[in-house]
Amino acid sequence: MTHVIRPVLVIILLFACVVIPPNALSANKAEQPLMTTAQQLFDPIPLTIPYPEGDFYFDEKIELGKLLFFDPRLSQSGNVSCHSCHNISLGGADGRSTSIGHQGRTGIRNSPTVFNSLFQIAQFWDGRSRNLFEQAAGPMTGELEMATSDPQVCHLLSSVPGYVELFDEAFADRENPLCFTTIREALAAFESTLITPNATFDHFLRGDCNALNDKEKQGLALFVELACATCHMGINVGGNGYYKFGVKKSPALKYRPVSDRGRQEIITTVEDDYVFKSPSLRNVSLTAPYFHSGSAWLLTEAVTVMADVQLDKQLTLEQQHLLVQFLKSLTGEQPHIVLPALPPLSTLSPRPNS
Amino acid sequence: MTHVIRPVLVIILLFACVVIPPNALSANKAEQPLMTTAQQLFDPIPLTIPYPEGDFYFDEKIELGKLLFFDPRLSQSGNVSCHSCHNISLGGADGRSTSIGHQGRTGIRNSPTVFNSLFQIAQFWDGRSRNLFEQAAGPMTGELEMATSDPQVCHLLSSVPGYVELFDEAFADRENPLCFTTIREALAAFESTLITPNATFDHFLRGDCNALNDKEKQGLALFVELACATCHMGINVGGNGYYKFGVKKSPALKYRPVSDRGRQEIITTVEDDYVFKSPSLRNVSLTAPYFHSGSAWLLTEAVTVMADVQLDKQLTLEQQHLLVQFLKSLTGEQPHIVLPALPPLSTLSPRPNS
Repeated sequence: MTHVIRPVLVIILLFACVVIPPNALSANKAEQPLMTTAQQLFDPIPLTIPYPEGDFYFDEKIELGKLLFFDPRLSQSGNVSCHSCHNISLGGADGRSTSIGHQGRTGIRNSPTVFNSLFQIAQFWDGRSRNLFEQAAGPMTGELEMATSDPQVCHLLSSVPGYVELFDEAFADRENPLCFTTIREALAAFESTLITPNATFDHFLRGDCNALNDKEKQGLALFVELACATCHMGINVGGNGYYKFGVKKSPALKYRPVSDRGRQEIITTVEDDYVFKSPSLRNVSLTAPYFHSGSAWLLTEAVTVMADVQLDKQLTLEQQHLLVQFLKSLTGEQPHIVLPALPPLSTLSPRPNS
Repeated sequence: MTHVIRPVLVIILLFACVVIPPNALSANKAEQPLMTTAQQLFDPIPLTIPYPEGDFYFDEKIELGKLLFFDPRLSQSGNVSCHSCHNISLGGADGRSTSIGHQGRTGIRNSPTVFNSLFQIAQFWDGRSRNLFEQAAGPMTGELEMATSDPQVCHLLSSVPGYVELFDEAFADRENPLCFTTIREALAAFESTLITPNATFDHFLRGDCNALNDKEKQGLALFVELACATCHMGINVGGNGYYKFGVKKSPALKYRPVSDRGRQEIITTVEDDYVFKSPSLRNVSLTAPYFHSGSAWLLTEAVTVMADVQLDKQLTLEQQHLLVQFLKSLTGEQPHIVLPALPPLSTLSPRPNS
């Protein structure tokens, strides 16, 4: 995988995909440059997840993490779970502009999908957590989300015999199998399994010329031509770098409210004003609304705004359509998740508080 | 199944299970009266659900209803689904005293389990809906729950091509395949599949003398002896009649607040003051807290209160323990549910409102 767009390749690509009439693209010969370029910019979602070397209990961690992910009792009200905002049935997000958490409070940023989050450079819109393990602490203890605390979560889980047993199994090699560290490790293990392989785009990346139809190929060519792939590349077609939202123009306040300065809030440099991690575009057609503000409900709207403010390009209706066709080819197989039965509380368990 | 306790049988049972020392109960001969009595009072959960005769699209209705059940976009905020309060992972209930619905509002009654609800005489604590079809309308349109309306739900679903297709398939024989009637029919079809067969008690009811251990058998004998089965009988060990909460004594205000008069609120006769449908005791060890008020967190507390206010009996610690052991034998196989992928909204879809 190459992390920069090579101008020469783009020129070759344009020759093949834009100058040549679209219907000629179905010929294998003409497609080769497009596929080669795509293969240099993007990688397919792997078919299986990478297991940490030497972790003999990783399957147990995944199973335990799955229970934790679906357990609303980890929240102060007993009503909010990881799954509330990262809904497996809704592309790993929640279909709202901003999520609803503890006592009906709303957050300020759109819930990013948990799917394929393993492949991101960091977690959260501002990348303030380096990985899924660090990320797991945020929503649990966030006042707008699950509104609990490290000791509360540990106390609750320690009071549930069914959980104690599972922690003992998954962390048999640890001195303290049930603690806030192992809770987050288990959550991260489960979340790392939530990948969506076998999108039609993945089949194309693996060499199947016919996986994408002509419109999707034209959309891919345009995606590269416009330089969308500058920020949206790699396995996740995004999620691997930080970029200003508004490179060429300031977006409308609706899309980029002044109340959220992105990475500047955690790094406090002028350069980081309105800088966010580029989101993954995997399964993007399932995860409206878009942007950190969750303010664009339609993919055509999102691509139009991005072309305008990031690239100073005004898309034609045909171009919007082609880009959306390509983006829809990024929808992979959704995770196959059987809902777990959660272990019942005990006489010692704290009760929900709301 | 016999819906009244026959005094003669109880006397025989007492002779077999109470007068005879508990350890003698393991002999098949001594057990026969207990099993016979149990078989006359209760029925096992069937292994498969009954399909409506002549409905050639019932499987399609079940699949569609499953999507609807898990879809939070049916609520006004896009945040509350049927599953929010009837959580498959939490015994079909939500583990709170009262549920949290639209904008963080709480209801007044404990969320009853959706599991085995098909076998109940009616739905809701006060039985105000005759069946699951009627019930489905309540939470969708309730201001404290999903806070939407018939036209809103129909409008939303009609805007989603993926749903329109599924309604066309599941209700191919209807003039209007997508309407508030068919929405509720599909939900009821899915919910009717949420049964929990093969509890150890079911194996006992089917003739396996060894399915229950000695303590569970003593608990069952006590359950019958005390006349708990007057209100908790049949397939669901409850859920098949209406009874005053406080037959012999008024329960503490904590358990029976004056603000909730039960069926009197819908029927307005003096006789129906504090009258509720007896809840099913199936999977009861998974669905704390208990009572319509969700005010008893422990099974020992619940059985103690019930014996006191319904029967004017003071349970010993040993009796509490035996009853709880029996009640735990009512936990069946939990439904095996793979989370569905919900169809994405379209450009025409209304957006969540909160």
